[in-house]
Amino acid sequence: MEKLFIIKIGGNVIDSKESMDSFLEKFAAVPGKKILVHGGGKVATTIGKQLGIQPNYINGRRITDEATIDLVTMVYGGLINKKLVASLQSLNCNAVGLTGADANIIPAVKRPVLEIDYGFVGDINATELGIDNLELLISGSMVPVIAPLTHDGKGQMLNTNADTVASVIAVALSKKYVVRLIYCFEKKGVLENVADENSVINLMNKEKYQQLVSDKKLADGILPKIDNAFDAINNGVKEVLIGDADDLLENCSVSVKGTLFK
Amino acid sequence: MEKLFIIKIGGNVIDSKESMDSFLEKFAAVPGKKILVHGGGKVATTIGKQLGIQPNYINGRRITDEATIDLVTMVYGGLINKKLVASLQSLNCNAVGLTGADANIIPAVKRPVLEIDYGFVGDINATELGIDNLELLISGSMVPVIAPLTHDGKGQMLNTNADTVASVIAVALSKKYVVRLIYCFEKKGVLENVADENSVINLMNKEKYQQLVSDKKLADGILPKIDNAFDAINNGVKEVLIGDADDLLENCSVSVKGTLFK
Repeated sequence: MEKLFIIKIGGNVIDSKESMDSFLEKFAAVPGKKILVHGGGKVATTIGKQLGIQPNYINGRRITDEATIDLVTMVYGGLINKKLVASLQSLNCNAVGLTGADANIIPAVKRPVLEIDYGFVGDINATELGIDNLELLISGSMVPVIAPLTHDGKGQMLNTNADTVASVIAVALSKKYVVRLIYCFEKKGVLENVADENSVINLMNKEKYQQLVSDKKLADGILPKIDNAFDAINNGVKEVLIGDADDLLENCSVSVKGTLFK
Repeated sequence: MEKLFIIKIGGNVIDSKESMDSFLEKFAAVPGKKILVHGGGKVATTIGKQLGIQPNYINGRRITDEATIDLVTMVYGGLINKKLVASLQSLNCNAVGLTGADANIIPAVKRPVLEIDYGFVGDINATELGIDNLELLISGSMVPVIAPLTHDGKGQMLNTNADTVASVIAVALSKKYVVRLIYCFEKKGVLENVADENSVINLMNKEKYQQLVSDKKLADGILPKIDNAFDAINNGVKEVLIGDADDLLENCSVSVKGTLFK
């Protein structure tokens, strides 16, 4: 099977033009088949404020109301996605921007209301992904650039966490490719000591993870990312890596700088 | 060669949820291979006002400044395009939303500054379209839904007239398909008498057009659409039709209701 890199970037890269330009040059230089999954970034909040859309929280969780799903459809699926695509095209990378609605690549269901109604948030129907369509693009030498948006198949766009989008797509494509899923963030990798940038854990497995959890060594923010990483590994993805966006090319090679899950 | 319908809708359809829903049901029912090209609509102006983006005119022509190109990238390429795609998906039409930057389908150059600097407006590089990529999608049974945005190949999105986008794509694809290009608007067709909805000109050719112009029978608004129609016909498109969005299915059949250019 051929190799495929699935690379996820978050708001910290998107929010700074300098970081973004530097990252996209590296991404364009990644050899072979690849997919970019991007998160949101602060621009949605800024534009939302200008439009008078008040962030709506219940128990500390942001609710995606109707105004907000339109806002993120516009900003994630339009502004950010197309800027990434146009920039990659300028670097001779044949990017094609997609949301989960496009070619039905990521169908989802609106999260069921239990204690909290999260609004227009999508839980992915992982067994019904439009993987054939996505593979047609990849095998046609296009580079999908995927926004963290899904749809319910009834005409409604939904908001879905970008880390989860990357993980679910990686699992589905691992049946056809040898996938390395790379989560880029602002640190060199998962750190043994959060205060020490040089304490990167090079190899993560379940035992190591359980030890870190019981020693309370992991920052809260990293936990969902680690969960997504293990989900991917446990469901057929060959390798998952958490590392710095600046180290992308090293992390696409054999001698990685980030934390490798195997 | 196989048939291909390229159908363009404008703001009048997009601005009303009822018109849009009714149109999309018809579009989803059009048999065989098809492409939808959509215009903007008033929502961009509304959102622009809320964001404090002042429309900027020189000699009566709207200028696409930096704030405006970001606005239309967001609204045309995100909000409108993805709502169309999600709705079509709910009608079992395998839509995939694209701008001209995606898969480099429509490269353009920023319009040269002569008397007026129109800003980020793109004149299409008709000889360099990414037609192979577009054809890969079509032959993979996807239905491209194209926003009126192009890019300069240097990372900048550009604003391009949707009628022109439809015409240029129709010409390029006419080398591989028997193309019928259909411009949907709010009248039944080109009218012999603008006050009489029943005076549709069924068949338009150059002689008829010249006679109508010298008799001053054509409304100003229709002239650019007619120019685009003749451009398409003169450059290999088999048939061009101008008609009512409500008559789409008839206009995709043999017994058309609108104005046919041949």
